[in-house]
Amino acid sequence: MSSAAALEAEVNRLRLELQTLRATTASEPIEIGNYLLQRLKQLDVKQLFGVPGDFNLGFLDLVEADSAISWVGNCNELNSAYAADGYARVNETRIGAVLTTFVLFDWTFRALADSEDSFGVGELSAMNGIAGAFSEMVPVLHIVGVPSTAAQQAKTLLHHTLGNGRYDAYINAAENVTIAQGIILDAENAAATIDRVLTECMKKARPAYLTLPTNLVYAKIPSDRLKIPLSHAQAPNDPEIEKAALNEIVQLVDRASANDNIVILVDVCAVRHDARAEVNELVKKTGFPVYASPMGKTVVPEDFEGYGGIYVGSISDPVVKAKVESAELILSIGCVKSDFNTGNFTYSIPAGRTIEFHSDHTKIQHAVFPGIGMKALLPRLTALLEPYSASARKITLPAPFVATLPEDTTDTITQAWLWPRVSQFFRPKDVVVAETGTSNFGLIDVPFPADSIFVSQLLWGSIGWATGCTLGAAFAARERGLGRTILFTGDGSIQLTVQELSSMVRHGLTPIIFVLNNNGYEIERCIRGAEAKYNDIMDWEWTSLLKTLGDRDGTKSVSYRVETKAELSRLLDDEVFASAGKIQLVEIVMKMHDAPRALQVQTEMGNKENVYGY
Amino acid sequence: MSSAAALEAEVNRLRLELQTLRATTASEPIEIGNYLLQRLKQLDVKQLFGVPGDFNLGFLDLVEADSAISWVGNCNELNSAYAADGYARVNETRIGAVLTTFVLFDWTFRALADSEDSFGVGELSAMNGIAGAFSEMVPVLHIVGVPSTAAQQAKTLLHHTLGNGRYDAYINAAENVTIAQGIILDAENAAATIDRVLTECMKKARPAYLTLPTNLVYAKIPSDRLKIPLSHAQAPNDPEIEKAALNEIVQLVDRASANDNIVILVDVCAVRHDARAEVNELVKKTGFPVYASPMGKTVVPEDFEGYGGIYVGSISDPVVKAKVESAELILSIGCVKSDFNTGNFTYSIPAGRTIEFHSDHTKIQHAVFPGIGMKALLPRLTALLEPYSASARKITLPAPFVATLPEDTTDTITQAWLWPRVSQFFRPKDVVVAETGTSNFGLIDVPFPADSIFVSQLLWGSIGWATGCTLGAAFAARERGLGRTILFTGDGSIQLTVQELSSMVRHGLTPIIFVLNNNGYEIERCIRGAEAKYNDIMDWEWTSLLKTLGDRDGTKSVSYRVETKAELSRLLDDEVFASAGKIQLVEIVMKMHDAPRALQVQTEMGNKENVYGY
Repeated sequence: MSSAAALEAEVNRLRLELQTLRATTASEPIEIGNYLLQRLKQLDVKQLFGVPGDFNLGFLDLVEADSAISWVGNCNELNSAYAADGYARVNETRIGAVLTTFVLFDWTFRALADSEDSFGVGELSAMNGIAGAFSEMVPVLHIVGVPSTAAQQAKTLLHHTLGNGRYDAYINAAENVTIAQGIILDAENAAATIDRVLTECMKKARPAYLTLPTNLVYAKIPSDRLKIPLSHAQAPNDPEIEKAALNEIVQLVDRASANDNIVILVDVCAVRHDARAEVNELVKKTGFPVYASPMGKTVVPEDFEGYGGIYVGSISDPVVKAKVESAELILSIGCVKSDFNTGNFTYSIPAGRTIEFHSDHTKIQHAVFPGIGMKALLPRLTALLEPYSASARKITLPAPFVATLPEDTTDTITQAWLWPRVSQFFRPKDVVVAETGTSNFGLIDVPFPADSIFVSQLLWGSIGWATGCTLGAAFAARERGLGRTILFTGDGSIQLTVQELSSMVRHGLTPIIFVLNNNGYEIERCIRGAEAKYNDIMDWEWTSLLKTLGDRDGTKSVSYRVETKAELSRLLDDEVFASAGKIQLVEIVMKMHDAPRALQVQTEMGNKENVYGY
Repeated sequence: MSSAAALEAEVNRLRLELQTLRATTASEPIEIGNYLLQRLKQLDVKQLFGVPGDFNLGFLDLVEADSAISWVGNCNELNSAYAADGYARVNETRIGAVLTTFVLFDWTFRALADSEDSFGVGELSAMNGIAGAFSEMVPVLHIVGVPSTAAQQAKTLLHHTLGNGRYDAYINAAENVTIAQGIILDAENAAATIDRVLTECMKKARPAYLTLPTNLVYAKIPSDRLKIPLSHAQAPNDPEIEKAALNEIVQLVDRASANDNIVILVDVCAVRHDARAEVNELVKKTGFPVYASPMGKTVVPEDFEGYGGIYVGSISDPVVKAKVESAELILSIGCVKSDFNTGNFTYSIPAGRTIEFHSDHTKIQHAVFPGIGMKALLPRLTALLEPYSASARKITLPAPFVATLPEDTTDTITQAWLWPRVSQFFRPKDVVVAETGTSNFGLIDVPFPADSIFVSQLLWGSIGWATGCTLGAAFAARERGLGRTILFTGDGSIQLTVQELSSMVRHGLTPIIFVLNNNGYEIERCIRGAEAKYNDIMDWEWTSLLKTLGDRDGTKSVSYRVETKAELSRLLDDEVFASAGKIQLVEIVMKMHDAPRALQVQTEMGNKENVYGY
């Protein structure tokens, strides 16, 4: 199946190369802007995020005229990048798309303006969001509306000759946070450029950058290429090399299984590269114990009998840590870190005991097998390892991964009680977004139901990301017919990007937003300044936010404030609330200085290192 | 006077150089963090803007312990950069300071983290704000808390050896939007680095970048250098060269004055480089007609008898345009554009008829006189040109720059009526911040009272800037004992950075915030998509914003909604409202598709060029 798809993709890739050379004009012509839209629609992109501006308005007219793709006007550029990121994360194999523009004023006060100042504003604001997607391998296409090619040439922007080099900086920056850049300069190469950038974005699961000049949006080009679909499938594995790799792996497994000492470690790149099914086949049919990285949480169902829980290196549950790190052989699948930083494997596990499976290569101990991707390899490996399932199932697991409510009769909502309690609230197919901070530390310690999706930005960790991400996640969940979208954030974190609640109301999305109100930046208090004023924030009227930011008549949203365990439990058990028919915000009043287990362990470690030398 | 100051500054600069070489340790030792604070306080910086994060908490402890400088915790990094920018703009000769940190998560999930991911987040979000300050010549110090030097070395961050080069990108980016970078790596050079960066920031009126590693914040260094003050004064002019320049200028003036055909054109760099007084002396004593660029508005009192109004190149009032562009000789003082982009003078005026006065050079027609700064030159020039005042005052001016209310008996609040009406509301010493869009286009066409300050980001034009800027502007106005701080923004623009209203409430600031509610991005509608949905925005409950974002008991703020001329006039005439005792927000309901004169002219021009080629 999957290798057939790979072959098909390869054939299409070659066909496109031929097209590029032939450049036939026999076909029905199409505007470049519409060519891009057609491609996005072929890739099942249904939402375009961003902020309107001078140089993207012409393209937006095409978007508005198209019934199959809709414009999500965000409140600012950073939020729009976060939203496109969330859309792609939950769509799993589909990309997210965000549209920004160069600065508004280029057409204003022309007498005082020149190009140096007029480039980069919209982009710059979005950059932190694109950089996060880059570091966590999320495919996001960043489309930037730019002035006409004539204007660009006149301003010699493409020759990097600006006195102060600031334009260079934007290009450099784009190159450093995107996997591919497409600078459209003429109609002839536009289609090939668009196809290349989209393909790279999908295949490498990384953001890509595309400029769209005003004068070319409506320029007509041949549409032939559109008949040839683009694909995220990797090139087929070389059968010879793949065979060699499989033999090696089977030998290592055979040796280690004698000592019942093999574990599988799953990370989110398995999802990013469309290998979720293959991974689940492997774990089910071979029965080896499987553990997940924090970002790999929910890639394998957490109710799976062979599931051992979350491995977070040094802050793991001690039993899990021991099981994983003492394993004689670790099959590491789709690890984000090593995938984008090969050779710098950051778990405390020697490479000599590790086999890494990646989208485009396999690493067995110290040997790299280039071009051997997991999607095609895993099914064959599963077949070869099934014979070991009997012994595999004998390997002992940690205590089942369950969350038990602590014996605690006080009214106060504690971190220790909150996370096990909300985990009972989760349902299959829910999409749960966790902000960096107490929320993701708390949630990784509790189990999720089958088919639910955990979304978190653990590597890049940009505070405020989760609110923007939830907008995109909620769109994707609605399109995929998944369950509820549920956000956990803090009173400090939500302030950074709060205006995007407005977009949720505007588009009739119905996420449940839990705001943990513990009077400030709790995660910072753990690190330093437990009582310091600088960790305080302004206490907002949280339950008025949705009304103020768009639900003027109060019909589209409901907000709650809960201060006790009983109040929160009552709410979670309420069928109307749980059915999430409207957008709902729940302010959860918690105590300062209360942190979840993992965060406590982490900060003890961190504080040891975070020395101020006195 | 001013040249004495310049000499004094030069002496101190030399003393500091000696200090650096001697590196005496005789003096009372001081922590590096406190050394920086002492310097900031010597420069009369009373507010530090920013967002707390792992690597700046140790420094924040010192800030919190200091009674003379206070921490303004912003809601996000971009807003904090905008606020520091506004603080510096209104303080005129004082700098603004903003503190960010590298990403929070560096200490979290260490098992999965490495340095590549852990750098730049806070900075990246602030970058658009810093870039704007760079392009408009606003001195802002960007302090970034970074990990210990040991951690940095371990991660070889300082050797630019990262596989994906992303750290390089941050440094590049910083280099491209700051005039000086100080990367503190050891205690020995810390003081000299801090002094260098601060001096460059002040002298060049541009942002500077300073990293502060956790392990050095409390490291002790000698405090001798603190006895030697830092200064923004330029090096003294070379008397020989200055004499030559003065002779040239007087000859040109002498020739042109025969034809009564000389104008002075003032821009905001006269203020940035502390030459406001000198410029005003020149215009008062010589009596030549004076015009202002949009950013130079209020540098010279607009009630000055010789004041001709605002020159905005192609979109100027036609009479003003003719007067300026037909002048035989134009004395251009502190022009931002040409100052930071010499040789690319963007007014439609040939260099052959222009004399440019800048902070560190003078340009007479095509000849540059390096090192001849305006602050020392202007007083001498004034003395030499006084003899011409009789003929100078004969040069005809356009009609007096007044704003008359249009004959319009409808209730609707129109752009044509609004700006003349609010100009009657302005008082001496008011600080008026205008958002890019209808607000700044409208305000440049109406006169301001003496000693009032007009603040706008016309070159960089980043939407949302004005709200963050107003926070800093209000702090500066309070410190300087100026009048009210008044913001004009749009319903679209304020959504980008709205959370900073919370900081205004938190710190007891009392700006008057006018939100022009015209259902969306009006300036975009002018350019394209007059009826397009993509120019719509969510209609918020504007009058609830302040209460929701912090004024929970409603005692600190008042909000109003006005729909008619009468309602707005009544409010503006109300003494309690006008006295601005609390923070006030006024929603002004206006019609879609109504734009101020200058914007209409501009968009007609712009649309001609903004071709979509169909």
